[in-house]
Amino acid sequence: MAVKHVGVALLGLGVVGGGTYRILKSKREMIRQNDNVDIEVVAVLDRNEARIKELGIDGGIVAKDIDEIVNNPDIQIVAEFFGGVEPARTFLLKALYAGKSIVTANKEMFSKCWQELEKAAEQGGGGLYFEASCVGGVPVIRTLTDSMQANTITSLKGIVNGTTNYILSRMSDEGVDYDTCLKEAQRLGYAEANPSADVDGFDAMYKNSILSSLAYRRRIPIENISREGIADVNVKDIAYGKELGYTLKLLAISKLKDGKLEARVHPAFLPNSHPLSSVKGSFNALFISGDNVDDVMLYGRGAGALPTGSAIVSDIVFCAGKDTHRRFPFENEQVQTDIEKDFSSVYYVRFDVKEEDGTLGKVAGVLNKNKVGVKTVLQKSADTLIIITNEVKESVMRKALCEAEQLSGVERVAALIRVEE
Amino acid sequence: MAVKHVGVALLGLGVVGGGTYRILKSKREMIRQNDNVDIEVVAVLDRNEARIKELGIDGGIVAKDIDEIVNNPDIQIVAEFFGGVEPARTFLLKALYAGKSIVTANKEMFSKCWQELEKAAEQGGGGLYFEASCVGGVPVIRTLTDSMQANTITSLKGIVNGTTNYILSRMSDEGVDYDTCLKEAQRLGYAEANPSADVDGFDAMYKNSILSSLAYRRRIPIENISREGIADVNVKDIAYGKELGYTLKLLAISKLKDGKLEARVHPAFLPNSHPLSSVKGSFNALFISGDNVDDVMLYGRGAGALPTGSAIVSDIVFCAGKDTHRRFPFENEQVQTDIEKDFSSVYYVRFDVKEEDGTLGKVAGVLNKNKVGVKTVLQKSADTLIIITNEVKESVMRKALCEAEQLSGVERVAALIRVEE
Repeated sequence: MAVKHVGVALLGLGVVGGGTYRILKSKREMIRQNDNVDIEVVAVLDRNEARIKELGIDGGIVAKDIDEIVNNPDIQIVAEFFGGVEPARTFLLKALYAGKSIVTANKEMFSKCWQELEKAAEQGGGGLYFEASCVGGVPVIRTLTDSMQANTITSLKGIVNGTTNYILSRMSDEGVDYDTCLKEAQRLGYAEANPSADVDGFDAMYKNSILSSLAYRRRIPIENISREGIADVNVKDIAYGKELGYTLKLLAISKLKDGKLEARVHPAFLPNSHPLSSVKGSFNALFISGDNVDDVMLYGRGAGALPTGSAIVSDIVFCAGKDTHRRFPFENEQVQTDIEKDFSSVYYVRFDVKEEDGTLGKVAGVLNKNKVGVKTVLQKSADTLIIITNEVKESVMRKALCEAEQLSGVERVAALIRVEE
Repeated sequence: MAVKHVGVALLGLGVVGGGTYRILKSKREMIRQNDNVDIEVVAVLDRNEARIKELGIDGGIVAKDIDEIVNNPDIQIVAEFFGGVEPARTFLLKALYAGKSIVTANKEMFSKCWQELEKAAEQGGGGLYFEASCVGGVPVIRTLTDSMQANTITSLKGIVNGTTNYILSRMSDEGVDYDTCLKEAQRLGYAEANPSADVDGFDAMYKNSILSSLAYRRRIPIENISREGIADVNVKDIAYGKELGYTLKLLAISKLKDGKLEARVHPAFLPNSHPLSSVKGSFNALFISGDNVDDVMLYGRGAGALPTGSAIVSDIVFCAGKDTHRRFPFENEQVQTDIEKDFSSVYYVRFDVKEEDGTLGKVAGVLNKNKVGVKTVLQKSADTLIIITNEVKESVMRKALCEAEQLSGVERVAALIRVEE
């Protein structure tokens, strides 16, 4: 079979863009032999001359602007590494309308602009490839699109952000508080100077939107994903959870229950025996449940120049081998009616209590009155009471806790953490 | 885009064949919508009338023999569920020469006959699809073929047999001996009446051959895979290993070291912190290391009607969407020269020793003389000495142990288990 020659443009030569350039160079011959495509970097777009020199890129392929790339008939695939919505969105729309396929690791832009990109791809005839947008080099997208066709997916649970998993792993293993761990993560380059995108769960929310949309074959916009970060996690609760057999993780969760979807990002306790509980440090994993395949977990590095570059290059090769591209014509509208906002969960509640007789009984009474079942009670000290509930609607839980906080023996609800079992 | 209609024949309606039939029936409409292919079971081949009735199959689609299927122009894909080499091999070769694609879960046949099937597929123009042959519904094959293109794979480590993992997990968790666990596995239907294919490592060897051939892009015939089963594993060693921080698993291993390949199946100790160590019971997992992606692990159910049926149906859909099929033109010959038989490993050795002064010193002397480094020594009791070595060639290790067994204080080498770190 004749080798297919494919011209690629790289927009941005930062960490992942540079890693991708290096992989495409070092593996060009191997890919030609194994996959029958010859992938050539025909153009790059980056103003940083020092970086271009550092990567050993021939000045002749440096484009002066996006139009030069869009108008170049030798380019079939445009891979983008800018991050952020603009100018990535505008540049990729131009490329798609010009008939090119796009490859991106940009979860924020992709989760926000997927529909718009989809329309441009339909019109131009190119394809959308975004394996690198979620869980780095681990083939979570390809698994959802090309290996789960026999399944109705019933839930996704993912550790999809390395920064927060690093911080929570350290808090858990070493008993160090959140602020100290965050500073350490920043020192090591795992967290940004402004860590909000990671620690407040935005990054996980973008990824949840992309993964859940694929899993349930309907658009789940970020506005429909409830989100809590890890900044308020107290190291005490991680330790108490441990005593109860739980590990705390920031999870991207979505579930299909009775035809309704729920999608959320928040810290959650998992039983220690759950495969996700042993995913430590900056590693990521996605746990997929389908009605035929049962449980599948995909694990690996969620970030980094070469792991993410590996996914980008895989997308380029996968795309290069296709004559027609997969479409994702999910509509937005139906979502508005079938997203469950008031979802059910098991809860871990820590109460600060006064040293008063009968407080436990009174708290139990309030919960019972509100039909919140109690699974476990742990009286840690005279002033700390921990309760694990049965599964209950969030609205019911919040009402019960408001009432409990009115009790004379209760100072306050000091922590409320969901438990996934 | 017009929906593509695809006719499928199912050869054999046993556990997985029946599961596949049920999935294809229940998910036909979903697959049509999501993947734009309408998959119809046009023929089945099975003599068991009761089973055909139980599955609710219309008698009109029951074929009288393979030729009826091979000659039916409405069939594009033949899926085989017989197990064993014949008649699966003959039937699938006929189908391939007739231009049909094949889908199979039959690791024994596929690992033994891949080249022959490949030639028939090339001639007929159909494709080979065998995702279900390894790790059930978990997309290990698709990951190796379609997601690792940017990587030179450096090693595979897999728990690819559920029966042995169930037995070893129980031995480890409950301290029960091998024979008791095997009987329990047989009672539960996890092990066959004749358990040899599983416990002696044949099944894992077949899978290792398939997975490693894909990973390193060269044929690794089963004859080149060294194989040891779990029948001689002593529950004592599992317990001693635990004390040293290790978990015992039956692993399918292959490694690319300095251009040479090694491929083997044997019980091995893994550090408890290794992600494979937490793969319990009948679950399977494959741990892939690539030079760019770093470590990736895929985890899930390695067997069962629906998980394996999920992989079969995924292959059918994947195949149906293709106009040309991937070829695996790996040649056999080169393997003969680049397989390393005398591989290096870290070893756990348990000696039965006599109550004599100075035995440890003498054993250490023999090891030292043979350049076998010692990492850890554990004197369990007056008559039990355990040593963990540094990495050493197998031939060197065996020679050193022969000499150690000649020492007056040494009764015998009671256990020798490789350690993967």
